Amino acid sequence: MANDKPARRPRAETPKGFRDYFGAEVTERKAMLDKITAVYHRYGFDPLETSGVETVEALGKFLPDVDRPNEGVFAWQDEDADWLALRYDLTAPLARVAAQYRNDLPSPYRRYAMGPVWRNEKPGPGRFRQFYQCDADTVGSGSVAADAEICAMLSDALEAAGIERGDYVIKVNNRKVLNGVMEVAGIAGDDKEAERGIVLRAIDKFDRLGEGGVRALLGEGRKDDSGDFTKGAGLSEAQAEKVMGFVNASRIVESELRDGPPRPDDRIPGGMGLTVSNPTEQSEHAGRLWNWAVLDHLMRLVGTTDIGFEGIKELGEIADLLKGQGYGPDRIRIDPSVVRGLGYYTGPVYEAELTFEILDEKGRKRQFGSVAGGGRYDDLVKRFTGQSVPATGVSIGVDRLLAALRAKGRGVADSAGPVVVTVMDRDRMADYMGMVGELRAAGIRAEVYLGNPKNFGNQLKYADKRQSPIAVIQGGNEAAAGTVILKDLILGAKIAASATLEEWKDRPAQVEIPRADLVAAVQRMLAQ
Amino acid sequence: MANDKPARRPRAETPKGFRDYFGAEVTERKAMLDKITAVYHRYGFDPLETSGVETVEALGKFLPDVDRPNEGVFAWQDEDADWLALRYDLTAPLARVAAQYRNDLPSPYRRYAMGPVWRNEKPGPGRFRQFYQCDADTVGSGSVAADAEICAMLSDALEAAGIERGDYVIKVNNRKVLNGVMEVAGIAGDDKEAERGIVLRAIDKFDRLGEGGVRALLGEGRKDDSGDFTKGAGLSEAQAEKVMGFVNASRIVESELRDGPPRPDDRIPGGMGLTVSNPTEQSEHAGRLWNWAVLDHLMRLVGTTDIGFEGIKELGEIADLLKGQGYGPDRIRIDPSVVRGLGYYTGPVYEAELTFEILDEKGRKRQFGSVAGGGRYDDLVKRFTGQSVPATGVSIGVDRLLAALRAKGRGVADSAGPVVVTVMDRDRMADYMGMVGELRAAGIRAEVYLGNPKNFGNQLKYADKRQSPIAVIQGGNEAAAGTVILKDLILGAKIAASATLEEWKDRPAQVEIPRADLVAAVQRMLAQ
Repeated sequence: MANDKPARRPRAETPKGFRDYFGAEVTERKAMLDKITAVYHRYGFDPLETSGVETVEALGKFLPDVDRPNEGVFAWQDEDADWLALRYDLTAPLARVAAQYRNDLPSPYRRYAMGPVWRNEKPGPGRFRQFYQCDADTVGSGSVAADAEICAMLSDALEAAGIERGDYVIKVNNRKVLNGVMEVAGIAGDDKEAERGIVLRAIDKFDRLGEGGVRALLGEGRKDDSGDFTKGAGLSEAQAEKVMGFVNASRIVESELRDGPPRPDDRIPGGMGLTVSNPTEQSEHAGRLWNWAVLDHLMRLVGTTDIGFEGIKELGEIADLLKGQGYGPDRIRIDPSVVRGLGYYTGPVYEAELTFEILDEKGRKRQFGSVAGGGRYDDLVKRFTGQSVPATGVSIGVDRLLAALRAKGRGVADSAGPVVVTVMDRDRMADYMGMVGELRAAGIRAEVYLGNPKNFGNQLKYADKRQSPIAVIQGGNEAAAGTVILKDLILGAKIAASATLEEWKDRPAQVEIPRADLVAAVQRMLAQ
Repeated sequence: MANDKPARRPRAETPKGFRDYFGAEVTERKAMLDKITAVYHRYGFDPLETSGVETVEALGKFLPDVDRPNEGVFAWQDEDADWLALRYDLTAPLARVAAQYRNDLPSPYRRYAMGPVWRNEKPGPGRFRQFYQCDADTVGSGSVAADAEICAMLSDALEAAGIERGDYVIKVNNRKVLNGVMEVAGIAGDDKEAERGIVLRAIDKFDRLGEGGVRALLGEGRKDDSGDFTKGAGLSEAQAEKVMGFVNASRIVESELRDGPPRPDDRIPGGMGLTVSNPTEQSEHAGRLWNWAVLDHLMRLVGTTDIGFEGIKELGEIADLLKGQGYGPDRIRIDPSVVRGLGYYTGPVYEAELTFEILDEKGRKRQFGSVAGGGRYDDLVKRFTGQSVPATGVSIGVDRLLAALRAKGRGVADSAGPVVVTVMDRDRMADYMGMVGELRAAGIRAEVYLGNPKNFGNQLKYADKRQSPIAVIQGGNEAAAGTVILKDLILGAKIAASATLEEWKDRPAQVEIPRADLVAAVQRMLAQ
């Protein structure tokens, strides 16, 4: 019986938006995460590993009353009618765990977690639907000391991973200050939620739209290049000015510090009694002045509102706590320019930026930018228990940080290929396996060629593909003479690439040695 | 407007069949996997990390023409109509990768992989729907040297993980020998597939049913305790005898070696020219004799069939190769009792068993059993490319091996709690954070108490829950005097548990030391 439709072969393809990681891509990430988690461990954080699958109900973004709740997540219906989904971050599972085990976990609970998360989004260049996150959170502490600790730990973790001091800065802001801005701008009321949303989105677009674009969105609205009109928040000139004073805070303070007279002292005005710093050493003066000047600027902007004042006070406390541990504004500083994710957070927010420049895909220089961010969120556990639980934490963008380390030529793990023992005589496979056994016992990465040994050229091509430093060769003559030949493939590649053999003549790329000296001779050649 | 149905709070629960891993559960597994992968690395294996999600088409067990192909896997339909699924093992993704990148990967390709896999099965005690696997495979080598290498590597990996020599044995069998058994039993033909299936399942049930039960299934059939009848393969007495000779091979050889006369030499009969071993040393005699005697027994059983003879020859070669590297039958031995997964494999199969006894859930002693298994499979890549690619590999049951290490009291990672700096005076938080900063800088795991500091008892309870070795205390008096108090919580617990204080009187559980000596004094106390 003939089939009219012969079965098509399955496609050997990763699903759209997913990718595979090979060799050094895996080991380098692991080496980086090992260094980061060693810091987390030293800070008293414990590891937590939840499964990749959660109930949609626990993830919380989606409701089981729609037919297919997979907007943004990968979801499916379990046989018993529960909707399940792949976790989209590590914070939602933490909230579930904090509620589920609330009677057993220490409080406060410091935990770190790392692993893949999944997003059901349109993939793009460099955007994948599975990627790594590495988080650290403290659940159950309302103290800003917990926020300060996360910032200090993030600073230590970045340096442990290989980002040098001076190549990064952690910027700290406070959601409460922004709430104060909304209040002084007269859009704090319950009836102004729409306006606040427009203002938030406008602030968030500053980098792209510039001051003019943001001002247009704060006012009547903005027509973009394509002619599309986006409705604005309808603020008056005076209201918009308040918001812009916040948006531009960092730049205003920067120019004041550069051009203006030195400040007479470094007390925060308004009698708060916060001693942010006392610049005794000239070298630290500018840095310490920064935090003071920013808080001063914010105080003038929103210090008259309760919520704004509280936010500024918290920022001052954070700066004080960090100073007590030696983290100056060169590493961690108050900076109102951090706005990302503000809608999600309830208090201090922080973001780690890498300050060195790289070339983008078009060859233009640009700052590397953000590699980690987080802040205080007090309502995630409440969903489950009805009780508000204060929490704060950070998430490191693992792939971005790894890309940064590669851009700086750091973070490269040991990716040396193995010594390859070639097979000249198929019947003496046991001898060749004995050789690799000896090499491995001495801690040397080694393998025997396991393909078809007929074509010796293929064996050397294989060794080349494996980035092997040395090929070991023993044919019948050598076996009879009790010797082996070592071929220095690194030197061989250099000779092949060089115009003249002259410079290499003192160092032969191939040596014949007694079989008994195999391990010692390989060790010598690897050490060269 | 009142809601008739107030929104129910979401349940804080892991989905059915999933679990969370805390603290030492995570670090101990990681420590074990780090040791295993270091061995894999030394053998020249490269890491590969594929994503958790594959197309159902690539996974291959399921067809997109049924409405919901989630039998055994978690699957869902992507927006563009592709069915996606969570991987159920690490071999199917490897086959996809080997086909997808066949022009770029070295050949043979040695890779290791580890990570979670998912099974959509009914969860049970100790059975979870997400669990870890750790695999190593060689793709592109048809040589039995590749199988021997995997067995040697598995032996090294088990010892590196902490399983002592003598506590495990790796048993090697060959699918081809079983095919020979089918042939001599007269059920090798295409028309006998049903019979072969019944025979395979019967062999697989030997441990549960015993010889009588298996014989019944080979014959007419078997009625179980509940009265249900299972139809047998309908073999004649003579046919069944051939199969039972295979099923009982290990036991027959064992009794022959124990009771029978010593063998005159250790050449395999039949003129194959395989020198399995030559027992020169008396201490190794019994072990070496084992492999010889098993092959001899199999030779008498199936040596007359081409396929059986080939299988025995391969087993002899594997034994020779391993002997050349010093792996005797005390670590790796030929053993026909390994049948699991035989349906899946095409050549040598192997399984690592732990030989020490543990107590089962009912308090009865039993052998720990299998922790890893694998074998040769030559057709997985063919699905994609149409070309057969020989491959062999092993999968370690990560959770089982970890349970074994715990049962032996090994493999316990550093799970010491942090030094806890308590908070006596909320206003001096910066001082307390300075203390933990100093301790951490000295490499000591330390944290400051971040909960509400009002109730000091709660702080000590917290330190207890954290398994903290030392609490650091500095109230106003100590601060004024420039001292801190160290409370030895381990000693304190011992004193509390002991009947008399007499034995502890020379070692105070609490000392007051100068603030400047904090790090040195903590180091001394931790070293005690």
